[in-house]
Amino acid sequence: MAKNTIEEIEALFHPQHIAAFGVSATAGKLGNLLLQSFIDLGFEGELIPIHPTASEIMGLKAYPNLDAYGNSIDLAIISLHPSKVFDAIKECVEKEAKGIVVFSSGFSEQGAEGKKLEEEIVEYARSRGTRIIGPNCMGLYSPASRIAFFPGLPSETTGEVGFISQSGSLSVNLAFDAALKGIFFSKMISVGNSADLTLTDFLEYLGEDPQTKIIACYVEGIKDGQRFVKVAREVSKKKPIIIWKVGETAGGKRAAHSHTGSMGGDSVIWNIITNQAGIISVQNLNELINHIAAFSHPYLPKGNRVVILSGPGGPAVSSADACEKGGLTLAPITDETKLALAQILPEYGTSVGNPVDLSLTSALNPALHYQAGEIVGKDPNVDMLLFFISVIPKSVIKGLLKMQEQMKKPIAIVCPIDLLVSWEGNIARHIKTLFNSLDPKKGAEYLQKLNQNGISVYLTEQDAVKALAALWKYQHFLQQL
Amino acid sequence: MAKNTIEEIEALFHPQHIAAFGVSATAGKLGNLLLQSFIDLGFEGELIPIHPTASEIMGLKAYPNLDAYGNSIDLAIISLHPSKVFDAIKECVEKEAKGIVVFSSGFSEQGAEGKKLEEEIVEYARSRGTRIIGPNCMGLYSPASRIAFFPGLPSETTGEVGFISQSGSLSVNLAFDAALKGIFFSKMISVGNSADLTLTDFLEYLGEDPQTKIIACYVEGIKDGQRFVKVAREVSKKKPIIIWKVGETAGGKRAAHSHTGSMGGDSVIWNIITNQAGIISVQNLNELINHIAAFSHPYLPKGNRVVILSGPGGPAVSSADACEKGGLTLAPITDETKLALAQILPEYGTSVGNPVDLSLTSALNPALHYQAGEIVGKDPNVDMLLFFISVIPKSVIKGLLKMQEQMKKPIAIVCPIDLLVSWEGNIARHIKTLFNSLDPKKGAEYLQKLNQNGISVYLTEQDAVKALAALWKYQHFLQQL
Repeated sequence: MAKNTIEEIEALFHPQHIAAFGVSATAGKLGNLLLQSFIDLGFEGELIPIHPTASEIMGLKAYPNLDAYGNSIDLAIISLHPSKVFDAIKECVEKEAKGIVVFSSGFSEQGAEGKKLEEEIVEYARSRGTRIIGPNCMGLYSPASRIAFFPGLPSETTGEVGFISQSGSLSVNLAFDAALKGIFFSKMISVGNSADLTLTDFLEYLGEDPQTKIIACYVEGIKDGQRFVKVAREVSKKKPIIIWKVGETAGGKRAAHSHTGSMGGDSVIWNIITNQAGIISVQNLNELINHIAAFSHPYLPKGNRVVILSGPGGPAVSSADACEKGGLTLAPITDETKLALAQILPEYGTSVGNPVDLSLTSALNPALHYQAGEIVGKDPNVDMLLFFISVIPKSVIKGLLKMQEQMKKPIAIVCPIDLLVSWEGNIARHIKTLFNSLDPKKGAEYLQKLNQNGISVYLTEQDAVKALAALWKYQHFLQQL
Repeated sequence: MAKNTIEEIEALFHPQHIAAFGVSATAGKLGNLLLQSFIDLGFEGELIPIHPTASEIMGLKAYPNLDAYGNSIDLAIISLHPSKVFDAIKECVEKEAKGIVVFSSGFSEQGAEGKKLEEEIVEYARSRGTRIIGPNCMGLYSPASRIAFFPGLPSETTGEVGFISQSGSLSVNLAFDAALKGIFFSKMISVGNSADLTLTDFLEYLGEDPQTKIIACYVEGIKDGQRFVKVAREVSKKKPIIIWKVGETAGGKRAAHSHTGSMGGDSVIWNIITNQAGIISVQNLNELINHIAAFSHPYLPKGNRVVILSGPGGPAVSSADACEKGGLTLAPITDETKLALAQILPEYGTSVGNPVDLSLTSALNPALHYQAGEIVGKDPNVDMLLFFISVIPKSVIKGLLKMQEQMKKPIAIVCPIDLLVSWEGNIARHIKTLFNSLDPKKGAEYLQKLNQNGISVYLTEQDAVKALAALWKYQHFLQQL
């Protein structure tokens, strides 16, 4: 990609004048939803609704067309019937739009005729210096620029995650769901059919973007395979890339094609690509969020040796299985470590091997978790720690954070109760009484603090192991450069 | 198992006089925790704390020994140092105890000496008509009998799930976590080292128990393999058995051995066993709860053909992959179904194939989920339905329940936001405003109602597919009898 494409994309993230086509005078249309998104985020530039008759829409001055508006624009959002899209694009190009988000569907994903129209539009716009995002996409979200593609998206400007997606609604899901876990985004791009600007273009852009420290993608099919691998490998050297790739099976491929006109690739080839380019692969929204959480911190493991610490013995055994199945090994802790553990653990019902079995005593004395963690964390044979904690009291979170100040090793916590669960009701009251649990309002805040200190929380031991293995895989990729 | 073992176990679930050894006068010991468990559940019989000097403990009259108490007892709970356990057992046997829960650890899981002591204890007690549960276990929980092994356990007596576990603390986790999802238990048995009464004994018992409709187990190793397979196969014909088996890898086997002295089996052999006996296998606590939820309902699928309905296109594609990888097929919906779908879905941005892509429109008009569901549910080519719903409004839950009254097919919902998540805070307010979301206090209640109507909710598409595939596997097992 020539340097100027990066510059062109950067400009799209800083529009001053945005025209919106396909907005209803009476609200309730998708175009109004898009307009509301900008209003909700406090966009400081000019929003220009285009409507044949209305003079005002959602409190904004409306125009019948861009000629009536008169000035040039930076960006346009088009959510018209596909048959009307080309005319609107011509208007925007006349007004020197730097980019146009084509929200409308009905193009290459619908067959040969749609594909032809899509190609004509792109050829027309590009030859006149205007870039197209989409069609069949939701466009751009950037809290710092106060631009968005769905009402009420998080306005936090501290996010360091860039997300590129071939599914628009999924981006909305991710933005909300991740926020509930204390994860925010620098930039999101919904590329749709990516008829002009492709996923690879945006990947290269985010690779250069100083706001973005981690890149995540949802991918149905890649058009420019060779260039993608080259770009991804270069970007991976600087920041981790986490990709949720779908369309691996025959049924998935058909579904991907009718969704964004993508041709899904072979899963064997995809595995080769991810290894070459140091890409972290995930397979659902939950794993995508988990892996972003794991990569939010600065500590990469020196090896693949894990120590497991658990109150209940069952999950300890299960975690040992998960580690060995997931490509990690159980750290052979030293005799010195075992002796030190024996000093703080009860004689019976516990185990000072690996897994370290903290027994039911840890429910009565939750400090055992971080006290034992501190001992094993110092062991030179231990690269990563995996805790199973049934319910996490605030005191344990504080203890783990303090412990990590010295340790600086990746830590995964498996907790079967979501930190965000509401504690209302009878059962929850008991749990709260017994374990001095978290205020749920603080859940996302604590999760954010944990993530930023190399401690991430998972629902299952398999989830935790997969994320720890990904940290090790990425470290290994960097070491082999 | 002779009929009288079942009767013996049944008697253990209806004790009138329970002695507790290892209770501290000043509280804070594990023995006191066990005593508190009975008090919390409102046990109506007599609790008899045994203590060398105290005359009252936790408001209960205490005795220095059972001779001082004088009468016979039904059950005893022993949480003494292992060196003192045998003497206490002798006291209990003298007083004609029907059963003794040996909470204490320090037996076969600690090596040859502990194993010898364990064998001596069992031989002594059994020869005198007293059954042992454990050692290294937590014993029995039954809300209907008001007996329990942890303070504050749910007191709901409507549960139809029986659980047998080689991990005690895990049972506590499961009881609390499942309750948050509206799932309750008829009986729980923590068997520990199972030196006398084994997992197989309790499996046969629960097979006969009219309160229990579903059986779940956590297993580290099985001592009486051949009998287990025979019993499991017979029980499976009457009710589904869901088993979380650990100790499959070398590290997991070592961990299981130091936990309950179990010898983990070969995973290939385990697969053969589960197929022969119609057992449903799961691999973590979350899957265990998911599968209990799936089997809470009475509709088993007629085949393995799934239809996928989703708002966001990404998860639709991913769900198609998950189905085909997980042994299910995408239902070939009829042209009639496609025509009917086309009547209610917008022309562009949607897809009337399988997956059915409901597009972002479904966020504005959530009724589309159950309206489209009703159409595809009538299709004779469809055996099961898988919905992806970003945030589930109350109206959709009601619509799905109404739809299911006619349909009676297994339905899985993938929802990336936990129904129990607290909606406090800025982001959540937006979600609530937009989607008219559930009151979190009602979360568990709704989940229970959904489960009881053959609709279960999962975090990921892979979780949903695994549970739907298990329903089909069990149906297949029943058909082949």
